[in-house]
Order: sequence, then C-alpha cells, then structure tokens
Amino acid sequence: MKKIAVVESFFEPHHKQQIEAAAAKCGYAVDYYLDGVLPRERAGEYEIVYGMPDRSALKDMTQLKWFCASFAGVDRYVDEALYPNSAVLLTNSAGAYGVTIAEHIIMVTLMLLRQMQPIQEAVRRREWLPPLPMRSICGANITMLGTGDIGATFARRAKAMGARSICGVRRTLKDADPAFDHVMTMAELETVLPDTDILVMALPATSETAGVLNRERIALLPAQAVVVNVGRGSAVDQEALAEALNAGRIAGAALDVFVPEPLPKESPLWETKNLLITPHVAGNMSLGYTRDKDVEMFCEDLDNFVAGRPLTHLVNRKLGY
Amino acid sequence: MKKIAVVESFFEPHHKQQIEAAAAKCGYAVDYYLDGVLPRERAGEYEIVYGMPDRSALKDMTQLKWFCASFAGVDRYVDEALYPNSAVLLTNSAGAYGVTIAEHIIMVTLMLLRQMQPIQEAVRRREWLPPLPMRSICGANITMLGTGDIGATFARRAKAMGARSICGVRRTLKDADPAFDHVMTMAELETVLPDTDILVMALPATSETAGVLNRERIALLPAQAVVVNVGRGSAVDQEALAEALNAGRIAGAALDVFVPEPLPKESPLWETKNLLITPHVAGNMSLGYTRDKDVEMFCEDLDNFVAGRPLTHLVNRKLGY
Repeated sequence: MKKIAVVESFFEPHHKQQIEAAAAKCGYAVDYYLDGVLPRERAGEYEIVYGMPDRSALKDMTQLKWFCASFAGVDRYVDEALYPNSAVLLTNSAGAYGVTIAEHIIMVTLMLLRQMQPIQEAVRRREWLPPLPMRSICGANITMLGTGDIGATFARRAKAMGARSICGVRRTLKDADPAFDHVMTMAELETVLPDTDILVMALPATSETAGVLNRERIALLPAQAVVVNVGRGSAVDQEALAEALNAGRIAGAALDVFVPEPLPKESPLWETKNLLITPHVAGNMSLGYTRDKDVEMFCEDLDNFVAGRPLTHLVNRKLGY
Repeated sequence: MKKIAVVESFFEPHHKQQIEAAAAKCGYAVDYYLDGVLPRERAGEYEIVYGMPDRSALKDMTQLKWFCASFAGVDRYVDEALYPNSAVLLTNSAGAYGVTIAEHIIMVTLMLLRQMQPIQEAVRRREWLPPLPMRSICGANITMLGTGDIGATFARRAKAMGARSICGVRRTLKDADPAFDHVMTMAELETVLPDTDILVMALPATSETAGVLNRERIALLPAQAVVVNVGRGSAVDQEALAEALNAGRIAGAALDVFVPEPLPKESPLWETKNLLITPHVAGNMSLGYTRDKDVEMFCEDLDNFVAGRPLTHLVNRKLGY
C-alpha cells in the first residue's frame, strides 16, 4: 500500500480522522511522527510527506513524489539539492495563516499607535500614567508589502477599522483583493513611503525581497511612521531600522522575524527604542483555525494529487513561493 | 454679549477656529480656560460651559443654561445639587469615543487571546519562547454589555474579524446596530454567559450597572472566557474577578477602569494572574479623531441650543446617561 508520512505535532483527534478519511479514499496508509522526527530507516517508504520534516530527511525519501509543508515560508526548503530528484512537488500552507497573522498585525500596530510600551512599563512600576498622545488605524495611510493571503486578510480588517488608504505593493501587477485601494509594484515603493503611517511587511524570503526595507527607504518614511514585519527578517536592514528608531526618526516598529533567529542575547535590538519584539509567533501553528485550515488544504491537494490535477498550493522552487 | 466658557486643554488651532465660527454665528463670545480652571469670580458670566470644569464650579455659574461635557461618562455630574438650578441642560460626548475605545478593546482582547503577557515577560528576559497556544477573535462568541457608540463601533470591527456571534446586552430592547447578531436585556444575561468567549463591558456608571458582573455571573463564564472592561470600574466585582483569575477559572481579563482610580499601589489587582491593567486610557482625549468629533458634536448642539431644538446628546440626569 502507498504511504503518507505525517511529520507534525499539532494534531487533534479530528484532524487525524480527517487525514485518514482522505487517505483511505485514495488508497493511502498514514503513519504519524508526532515528535517531528522521521527515522532514516523508514524514510524510503513514503510517496508523500506532510508536515515539517527535518531538511536532511528529504534526501532519504527515495520514493517521495510530494512534500506538503504545513507552514507557509518554505525558503529553507527550496534548494533542489535537498530532494531525491527534481520531480518532487512542493506545496506550502500559505492560506492557513492569514487570520492569525492579520490579528497579530492589528494587535502590534495598535500597541505601537496607543503607546502600550510606556504604559505597560508604568503599570509594572504600579504607576498611574497621565494620558499620552495616541493615534489610530482609523484615518491612517497603510502600505502593505505582500498582497497574498496575509496581506489581503489584514487589509480587509484595516479597512473595517477605517484606514484612509491601503496600498498593496507586490512583485507583479496581478489582481489583488478589493480591500486594497491601490496596488503597485516594488519599483514604485518609494513614491508611497513618504505618506505612509503604517508600513506592514509580509514577504517571503526570496532573492528579490532581501533587504527590501533598506536604509534609503527607511529614510523616506515620515516621523509618524510605524513598521511591522511578519514575513522574514531578511527583508529589513535591521541595523538601519534600529538607528532610525533610536534617533526617533520614525515612531516605532514591531518585528516578529529576525536575522538570525532566535535573536541572540547580545543583539542591540532588545534595547532599541520603541521596538516591540515578538519571538516569531505571528504565524505559529497554535491557532485552532490555522490547524483546521492547514489539514483541510492538505486533504484538498491530496485529492488533486491522486486525480493527477495540478496542486492548488504548489510552490515554484525557483521563485521561492 | 452672551458668553461660552470653554474649560478644556486639548484644543488645536483648528478646533478653536471651529468653535469661534459656530459661536459667532449664534452671537456668542468664547472665553478659554485651557488649564481646566474656571475662576469663581468669572463663573457667573456664562450661559454655556463646554469641557471638563471642576464639579464645584458649576454651582457658581448662576447664568448657566447648558453644560456640554467633553467626555462621555458623566456619572460624577448627574447630582442635581451640583447645579444652580434644575433647568440646566447636560449633554455628554458619547459618540466621540467609539473609535478609540473600540481599538483599545480589539488590542487588549488580542493581547489576552495571543498570550502577549508571557511573551512580553520572556522578551524582557531576552528569551525566545516556544510557541504558546493562541486563540482568535475569528470564530469567537462575543457578549457586549452596552450597545451604544462604543459597543456598536467595536461590534462592527469584531464582525469584520470573523467573530462567530456578537450578542449585545442593553437596558432596553431598542434597535441596535446591525453588527449585533442578537440583542437582549440585562435580565437575560445569564443565558449567554456560559457560551461567551469574550465578554466586553462598556457601561456607564449608574445604579443599574453597579456590580453587573458579580460573583455569580463570573462563575457562569467558561474556562476560556476573557473579560474586558472599558466602562466604569463599579460594574465589576473586582475581588471576585481577581479570585477567578488567580484560580485559573477564566482565561484572562483586561481592565481599564477601577474602583478606586488611580488604582492604589497596594491593590492586589497589580499582581493578579492573567490580568492586563491599563490606567484608564481607552477613551482619553489624546486621539485626534476623538478631539475633532468632540468639537464637532458641541458645535452641532450649539446650533440646536440656539434654535431651541432638542439637544442631540442630552443626558437624562435621573438615568445617568
């Protein structure tokens, strides 16, 4: 019997039932490796692997035809040398993370605009702070780098909260979600930065996105700008951003992703002024909705795979997403 | 010439222009007391006072016909004995605070659901926390006590974020904003508490709302419930809430209002488990939108006052809002 290896830890009983029902329908057996480790001596048994196996395990999967990543950012899995052969299909789970990451973006943006860091510091000292000036998503100009599931899910929420204008910036000028008031390409980014109150970055790590927010572009942001990055740390010149924050040239930033991760204890970012640090939690698998959607997307593409149809969530390993 | 005293500190030049244009049109002169203090010897000159004068100043305003409070919660200003006579009209600025308070509610709710308190503690220690279980506004059952401007503005945002059900609870069964899926009276509150994931309270301080969230009702909340109070501290049995939080019987709470304020240094609330404290900042006047709206509402009601029409934002001093 053909076999699927599921290498992930997040499953609840109903997820397993769903996977097993979908697999049985297609004539596959399912083995679970809930500790996330696929033993080398078993690797050759599987046509399909779903989850987050170690990169080094893929090469041993000599029968592998399809790797369904249970996560969205597959930058560490696009190297052809990782795979037993170049015909192995790679899909990701972009689409499962929009809700949780959009909620993270809304939360940290409001924490920056509403001065939660000084307020929480005062509360830790049991002090009652006098009112501080606050700002709002209502009436703000938002620039969103990345207009996929995350960008669109956030844009719809920001629109409902009264954002004045939401500009989506992307690699190409394909159609984007109607929640974006404008869509432009990366080449035009400089034109909107001076009017941006809230700059949100949700870009995959590719050669094109590395250093997108560089020193020159940071210098174009106005004094009231806040920057939120939930994509990959490589998209931001961290040193230039920290300089701008410490000098008060921009109002604040919330970074969930870094180079490297975990952020080293000695990193100057920990002490950077008006910087809200979270340890890569925006899109982790801990949200029930995300887990449900992730399993649902795998089961849909399993149907596609068995029927010989194109996989919905196929990654172009050359582009990196 | 008839005169208006403006006793408030928040004004920007365009606010003054707006007030003066509206006053001139009606034949009123305007005096500003930007430090918030109306001198006793001047008090008798004014027919109208707008802002946040000291309670003791009102009695000296022997010509007073209308007091327009620049804030929403007028509970400290409903006592008839404060006024030179019972014909003085009192209006409040409910309606100016919906946006800022709704954003506060969204922010603290997400901070509770997304475990920001343990995450931020780890970040202060420069530690990289492993993923914690998170929850979402998406799919949540929300119960909103108070269906006025704040409740409706929040409900519209929560709906856009995918809340499963939003139940508005109010004193009477008047029409409420369509963002509420259901509306019920306080008498029915017990029926929804056991299914409530997020309980939000935005009630004025009146004799009816005192202790609305009492020990018995807290006991009806499920283990995953979070409680957010942005109305008045008197609506919550703080001791019973702290007990439930410390015992882990409910998942978390965010309080912006307390009895008394400022919260005393020795209050056990400062150390209560899973309690997010903010120092009455949800609705302060620091948001530009709020200030603009506040002045706009005063100018509109000034037109009404001069024309002899009913004031839009009139407070029933007996009901307290």
